[in-house]
Amino acid sequence: MPDRLSGLGVSPGAGTGPVRTIAGAVPEPPVGERHEGDAAAETARALAALEEVAADLEKRGDRAGGEARDVLAAQAMMARDPGLAELAGQKIADGTSAPRAVHEAFGVFRDMLAGAGDYMAARVADLDDIRDRTVAVLRGLPMPGVPDSDEPFVLVARDLAPADTALLDPAKVVAFVTEEGGPTSHTAILARSMGVPAVVACPGCTALAEGTVVLVDGGSGDVRPDPSAEEVARARSAAGARSAALAATTGPGATADGHAVPLLANIGGPQDVAAALAHGAEGVGLFRTEFLFLDRTTPPGEDEQEAAYRAVLQAFPYVVVRALDAGADKPLGFLPATGEEPNPALGERGLRMLRRHPEVLAGQLAALARAARGLPVELLVMAPMVADAAEAREFAEACRAAGVTRAGVMIEIPAAALRARDLAVEADFFSIGTNDLAQYTFAADRQVGALSRLQDPWQPAVLDLVAVTAEGAGGKACGVCGEAAGDPALACVLAGLGVTSLSMSPPSLPAVRAALAAHTLDQCRHAAIAARAAHDAATARSAAREALPALAGLGL
Amino acid sequence: MPDRLSGLGVSPGAGTGPVRTIAGAVPEPPVGERHEGDAAAETARALAALEEVAADLEKRGDRAGGEARDVLAAQAMMARDPGLAELAGQKIADGTSAPRAVHEAFGVFRDMLAGAGDYMAARVADLDDIRDRTVAVLRGLPMPGVPDSDEPFVLVARDLAPADTALLDPAKVVAFVTEEGGPTSHTAILARSMGVPAVVACPGCTALAEGTVVLVDGGSGDVRPDPSAEEVARARSAAGARSAALAATTGPGATADGHAVPLLANIGGPQDVAAALAHGAEGVGLFRTEFLFLDRTTPPGEDEQEAAYRAVLQAFPYVVVRALDAGADKPLGFLPATGEEPNPALGERGLRMLRRHPEVLAGQLAALARAARGLPVELLVMAPMVADAAEAREFAEACRAAGVTRAGVMIEIPAAALRARDLAVEADFFSIGTNDLAQYTFAADRQVGALSRLQDPWQPAVLDLVAVTAEGAGGKACGVCGEAAGDPALACVLAGLGVTSLSMSPPSLPAVRAALAAHTLDQCRHAAIAARAAHDAATARSAAREALPALAGLGL
Repeated sequence: MPDRLSGLGVSPGAGTGPVRTIAGAVPEPPVGERHEGDAAAETARALAALEEVAADLEKRGDRAGGEARDVLAAQAMMARDPGLAELAGQKIADGTSAPRAVHEAFGVFRDMLAGAGDYMAARVADLDDIRDRTVAVLRGLPMPGVPDSDEPFVLVARDLAPADTALLDPAKVVAFVTEEGGPTSHTAILARSMGVPAVVACPGCTALAEGTVVLVDGGSGDVRPDPSAEEVARARSAAGARSAALAATTGPGATADGHAVPLLANIGGPQDVAAALAHGAEGVGLFRTEFLFLDRTTPPGEDEQEAAYRAVLQAFPYVVVRALDAGADKPLGFLPATGEEPNPALGERGLRMLRRHPEVLAGQLAALARAARGLPVELLVMAPMVADAAEAREFAEACRAAGVTRAGVMIEIPAAALRARDLAVEADFFSIGTNDLAQYTFAADRQVGALSRLQDPWQPAVLDLVAVTAEGAGGKACGVCGEAAGDPALACVLAGLGVTSLSMSPPSLPAVRAALAAHTLDQCRHAAIAARAAHDAATARSAAREALPALAGLGL
Repeated sequence: MPDRLSGLGVSPGAGTGPVRTIAGAVPEPPVGERHEGDAAAETARALAALEEVAADLEKRGDRAGGEARDVLAAQAMMARDPGLAELAGQKIADGTSAPRAVHEAFGVFRDMLAGAGDYMAARVADLDDIRDRTVAVLRGLPMPGVPDSDEPFVLVARDLAPADTALLDPAKVVAFVTEEGGPTSHTAILARSMGVPAVVACPGCTALAEGTVVLVDGGSGDVRPDPSAEEVARARSAAGARSAALAATTGPGATADGHAVPLLANIGGPQDVAAALAHGAEGVGLFRTEFLFLDRTTPPGEDEQEAAYRAVLQAFPYVVVRALDAGADKPLGFLPATGEEPNPALGERGLRMLRRHPEVLAGQLAALARAARGLPVELLVMAPMVADAAEAREFAEACRAAGVTRAGVMIEIPAAALRARDLAVEADFFSIGTNDLAQYTFAADRQVGALSRLQDPWQPAVLDLVAVTAEGAGGKACGVCGEAAGDPALACVLAGLGVTSLSMSPPSLPAVRAALAAHTLDQCRHAAIAARAAHDAATARSAAREALPALAGLGL
């Protein structure tokens, strides 16, 4: 076992516990494997395994609720497909073993999907998952997927997808370690929002033996197997001291020389208000409203919306609401895409979808205007996926018509950043979504772990677009609400580029507040210049850190 | 019937003939529709219809060959799925009519797919197509898809997808007219490469009665039903005069004041050499090499590659070859994606794929170097989907190692354009792919007709990126090989932005040559400034045309 593994720390803090690995691949049953001769018993075994898998998927779906339930119910339906069972039964009747027969039967379905235009391959993975689960049951192997555990553990995986973590019990995970992924991968975002340490891009971590106790430092990126009690104590006390040091900086966000940079929270619904307040958010910079719309066959009524919005609006003096961002990875039953979308992230999502359903937008805006009435809150509403000035104008008109006076746009499409000057004529404010902006600027899917290098918001091309946007805003507010805002060094760079507010997962607020307070605006500007002068993300990051000398002393 | 329809002319010339419409939707069989009582006969009818559809799909696949054969064979396999037939049979046994039973049986499969992560919806369309074909057979309705016709016709559709046109007989189509689409839609690209007139974004065209004779002007965008003989003659003679006028400009591409802008051809294989030479191409600016790799389970050998490359290299003094651009909408059997790709266009395509299979790239480069040996040709090779300087360097090193001395990069990712200055350090030349560049800059899928407004290369944000790239090239060659290069007015603008060569479908060469020859470089520069000062594509186009006064006189 290596003495020490090293990766990219993406969520600070120290965590220690036994390794639980997301089980690896279930081996393919050998070609030609045969059963003992009792075809009826073997068939019964196969059917029982399929049913066990289907029932387990359903049970997990019921526990998870929400969107996950539908996805898992659909998988359960596949496992119970009569054509599949029949095909497996035929193969078993011919002498093939149950695991091999199941494997081959799934193979027929798989080829059908994979052949149907080839790129259907995208969802073949669901079939493979059911197949592997069924073979695992037949073989008595550990079930693939997130491990069940009664004690807290360090979750280790090649990479984590939203499906892997839908059922995760936050109280059980003390740290995340993955082989792949980057600062904006799902693991990193999830860990930061949970306030749990995480190390990504850590080669060799999946080779750690199950149950090995490791010490994970989500700041430095170190992963130490079998740490001594002393090492654990030292790491914990360092992490504690660091938290205390960060917590010592309080009050509104500002640089050392008093340049105000309001620090805001990204929230996904009223349930996130408490954490935002606890971490000292000065307001909400991104209020995602999808929670009201998911899992339904008709849009929520205006009264229901108004109540949910009011629960957030009454808690803060300043709230930026993002209008419904449907489509792409967040499809809604009652807002289907017009036609085939071979690339949903490049399709009719965000404002594009709302333009086809103006009644949904009008209803949401009206409910927002009513929710704010009589409250001492500044309500701002922004549109997702705005491409050009014409779209910005159309959205602003819809806002005014509904009684929402401050209408802004998300800058997450490269064209919108390049033409920020034109958009500023129509919009009251900008909010840069660095995650999607990086995805489109590098044509690199956020959901594909192998491309995480290209999704790094430290990429100088992304910094260039932030600079163009802040300049194009021409004095209007220009915030950042992507993951970039929660990186203390990058937060300073963004302030140096002219960004006027930063919105992030609440647990990231103390570190960003401390980093800003430790540097002058001029230092931030120099860090920004140094980062943009670099030719790649790693160099940009180290050049900026050199220009921000107080970071190291804060343990950031 | 309206007196005249009007759309966007995207491929010039006049064409006349009877309208043949791609058949519209097959109506859903009513819920609860029942058969006469003979379930066995009704089941036989359903099975026969499924088999007829499967056989027809196979037959069409065999006629089309290539990639289309595999896609259609997979569809045929779906139509013959035993689970589907059984399900339909059960419903018929319960009294449901064959069309309704087939519809419902497909519905079960459809829900399975659509539910499996929702975004599988992308390929649900294949299932719907088979379902509609089967219901059409059972109802005696016209089969959806491209019409069969013995006489030449004007093809009218809402929009055309590659699947619709795979089987099109080029000799039979005299013009295209579509309700949707834009200058870079599939219809426009296909029409220009066929040299057939086309009008897109033409509201009302699908309401034209089948068989109505129409006159289509692919320059002005006019579509005239029931034209008089005189009108047809006039249009034909105008088109003829225009062709003659354009053909009068010969020789190498240059502005009126002698600034050389080499005019090159986009080709897809040796079969396109003749057309390129016939239209006076000075060389090849984009030699797509996918034709050698599609439809195979192993990569082609170096000897086979060498022979194919040589057939092109010996015909021209200057050839820019694009290394294999696999992935996204061009998946290859022997180069599968690593994992799930929910958005293939943002996934492991182009150079990203080649980096994972360096042996494929090395083999192609070696075959190219050998093919050029002893020929008086300047061979340049470029990588598709380059994101940053590190990737450009890696590709250039692979080229040098294989004996290819001039290594360049496609600029089709916004980050590459923004950081062209960094890439120019590593690459010998640039070639801007405006189609993909516009797709990523606007996050708008080229395959989604409803977003065609955002795929217009006249969008000022795209022009900005072309300008940044040409400037960043710092004196190195910087061509354009997207559809933009074949638009005469836009070609002048691109030259004004500093682009050094233009590569296009061969039939577009005469018009671009004439447009350039009619204007000075200064006029082109002023047109470029006027276009970039606009806030949207339409204004950019009209402002540029105003600055290019000789276009109208040339009928351009």
